[in-house]
Amino acid sequence: MSRLNIQLLLTGDEIMNGDIVDSNSAMIAQQLIPFGLKIAKKTTVSDDLSLLIEEINTLSQQADILIINGGLGPTVDDLTAQALATAINVPIEKNNQAYQHVLNWCDKRSYPITDACIKQAMLPKGVDIIANDIGSAVGFSIVHHQCHIYCTPGVPRELAIMLEQHIIPQFADNVTQNFAYQVRKLQVFGIGESSIQQLIHNHFPKWPAEISLGFRACTPMLEVKLTTHKKNTLPLLQQWQEKIHHLLGDHVLCQFDGAPPTMAEHVLSLLQEKNLKITTAESCTGGLIASLLTDISGASESFEAGFVTYSNHMKQTLLDVPEELLVEHGAVSESVVKAMVLGAIKKSNADFGIAVSGIAGPHGGSDEKPVGTVWIAWGTSTTIRTVKFIIKSDRQSFQISVAHRALDLLRREILMSKQSPMYKK
Amino acid sequence: MSRLNIQLLLTGDEIMNGDIVDSNSAMIAQQLIPFGLKIAKKTTVSDDLSLLIEEINTLSQQADILIINGGLGPTVDDLTAQALATAINVPIEKNNQAYQHVLNWCDKRSYPITDACIKQAMLPKGVDIIANDIGSAVGFSIVHHQCHIYCTPGVPRELAIMLEQHIIPQFADNVTQNFAYQVRKLQVFGIGESSIQQLIHNHFPKWPAEISLGFRACTPMLEVKLTTHKKNTLPLLQQWQEKIHHLLGDHVLCQFDGAPPTMAEHVLSLLQEKNLKITTAESCTGGLIASLLTDISGASESFEAGFVTYSNHMKQTLLDVPEELLVEHGAVSESVVKAMVLGAIKKSNADFGIAVSGIAGPHGGSDEKPVGTVWIAWGTSTTIRTVKFIIKSDRQSFQISVAHRALDLLRREILMSKQSPMYKK
Repeated sequence: MSRLNIQLLLTGDEIMNGDIVDSNSAMIAQQLIPFGLKIAKKTTVSDDLSLLIEEINTLSQQADILIINGGLGPTVDDLTAQALATAINVPIEKNNQAYQHVLNWCDKRSYPITDACIKQAMLPKGVDIIANDIGSAVGFSIVHHQCHIYCTPGVPRELAIMLEQHIIPQFADNVTQNFAYQVRKLQVFGIGESSIQQLIHNHFPKWPAEISLGFRACTPMLEVKLTTHKKNTLPLLQQWQEKIHHLLGDHVLCQFDGAPPTMAEHVLSLLQEKNLKITTAESCTGGLIASLLTDISGASESFEAGFVTYSNHMKQTLLDVPEELLVEHGAVSESVVKAMVLGAIKKSNADFGIAVSGIAGPHGGSDEKPVGTVWIAWGTSTTIRTVKFIIKSDRQSFQISVAHRALDLLRREILMSKQSPMYKK
Repeated sequence: MSRLNIQLLLTGDEIMNGDIVDSNSAMIAQQLIPFGLKIAKKTTVSDDLSLLIEEINTLSQQADILIINGGLGPTVDDLTAQALATAINVPIEKNNQAYQHVLNWCDKRSYPITDACIKQAMLPKGVDIIANDIGSAVGFSIVHHQCHIYCTPGVPRELAIMLEQHIIPQFADNVTQNFAYQVRKLQVFGIGESSIQQLIHNHFPKWPAEISLGFRACTPMLEVKLTTHKKNTLPLLQQWQEKIHHLLGDHVLCQFDGAPPTMAEHVLSLLQEKNLKITTAESCTGGLIASLLTDISGASESFEAGFVTYSNHMKQTLLDVPEELLVEHGAVSESVVKAMVLGAIKKSNADFGIAVSGIAGPHGGSDEKPVGTVWIAWGTSTTIRTVKFIIKSDRQSFQISVAHRALDLLRREILMSKQSPMYKK
């Protein structure tokens, strides 16, 4: 296969103004690497119809594949469909498949069907639709000047899923017939890329050449991706997925396609399965754990109440934490988080509880308890476990990290995990 | 002044591969904005000599100003000087000024003078040198095809200083003598772009031509931006900023430069100013309001405790909401949110309280109380106000919207606002 000329055309005033940094083109490049494909050139223009038309004309004569990113949305500055239609000299018409998608999308959310919505179904005549699994604007493709043109959404999550699920498999089918593409993914928490690579290196010194190993940080989670682009290697891929899953043990949250669940979804589905209720007693995370849980539809089945006890006084009055513990050990201590869990379980009648107390910073640290120190307690009214971490990062990342570790510890508890979570880089 | 055509040409394999995200072009764009200058197009290619030569040829015929970024360093994949020399058909020669800079740079650091170092002084004949105040590779510029070509380093800090200290002042002197740029910004909540435009249209039918009005959605907040590019219009700009501020009243959170505060920061700073404490009693927002408040460093001065009471039972046991209110009116009702605020204030000894109860969806709605219905109560133990909204959107956006409205209502209360918030689109 001779080298394909793949080009990107990005559109968006907010990118040209520097209001946002373009991360989509890096994502596209990274998704192409496993296939030995490289982007030859990328061109970025503002939301300007005549510029877009000119670039589509020029680039479609240079490239074998042209990926256009952005400008698919409902507003007047979303011009990709119009520009493509003009460049390839076809009319804009209502695309039935796209229209049905918009109707379904609005209907699910009880949104009114406005002209702006319908605009997303007004596409160049003759395009093939590319499904958008989460957003309202479908992608579309057409061949012009022997160039395969793919129009994709600017919203990064929509783009990521569309590429992986729909566009790259099409490349495999239509454009680059010499490989079959398969991917298997694991969602992982509590262990980082370099530790995983070290583990694999130690356990499997002979890694099969047909499979490439990739990582995608979705902080604080991590995705481990095994891909093959050789034919007839699917059984091998599945076998190695199982090997890696076994090697990483309970660090693996799930095997998945598409968008993976959140940590709170994992915890809630375990609780629902076992018909258990949870409560939270939060100091340094200030309600974030409760908020992550209640983000999920159906959370009320497993979550009745949570406590945000920021001050010592409130830890006493709301959670019955004994004053002497606070005086003797301080609020950020093993005995206080234990008492917080117990108090929360008692007051809420939940089966499980999580409590956290720590120093989010940037102020409030000491030599003995520096900024980033946190105690987490979790368990039932009869068995409570505790752990201390020191997590050095800014206030928001600290809170997110603590909330996820607390939920993960509870997840492992419900799974009766024997592995101790190391939370390695 | 007719609009200048400014283009960027970026080079670097690590950008094309997606190993790094390009933030330089956003930085360049942002540095140009104060001068009313916009980048028309940016083109990115890998470190490939023939591609670079081709693009320099093409773009220098399109652009008035071409900024080339990257490829100035000492290694073999740094090709900008070679590409520019070939494109404009001049030889490469040792540039004395650049050579002296490299010698000094190495000498200061006691580095040996290697061939790789000296390569950075091998430049196209006839270029003007642009000082690099921190790095070893100078920048350089030349006029070709009436296009001003500026070659700049890829290291972000070197680029930032070179732009600000040396390149942009040259633009101002040589290229764009005719304007002065000023901007004034207002942060707004509770009223949307179209309502603001309508208000302005009604109150000020004669808008001054020298000032342009812009909007930036930072959901759920909005930024209103007034800019002028004409000389001597600063007093006019300030006068119109005041007019718009007055027109929008308490919808305006602040006038600002740089990054505006969050809604929670506004509320916390008002509370701190008056030495008041707040508590939260959350049902449908599930801890989000507490979490937004405790995101802010120093929140503990004004926030001691919050309650997440998801179930009816917990509203009774934790907040003393009378059972008969729940039975008679349901959890999503005026009387229940009132009782929630009262209970939370009593239990936490706070001065102010916020309570919310609503149906986040997608399930749980009825004809009488559809998904999106929410009651908010706020106030003190003696004066409690309430309001009902119906907010149609997905679960997460609903929660974010409710949390911000609740905080905004409290903000207006503390300010003793007489305007009723309409929360218009």
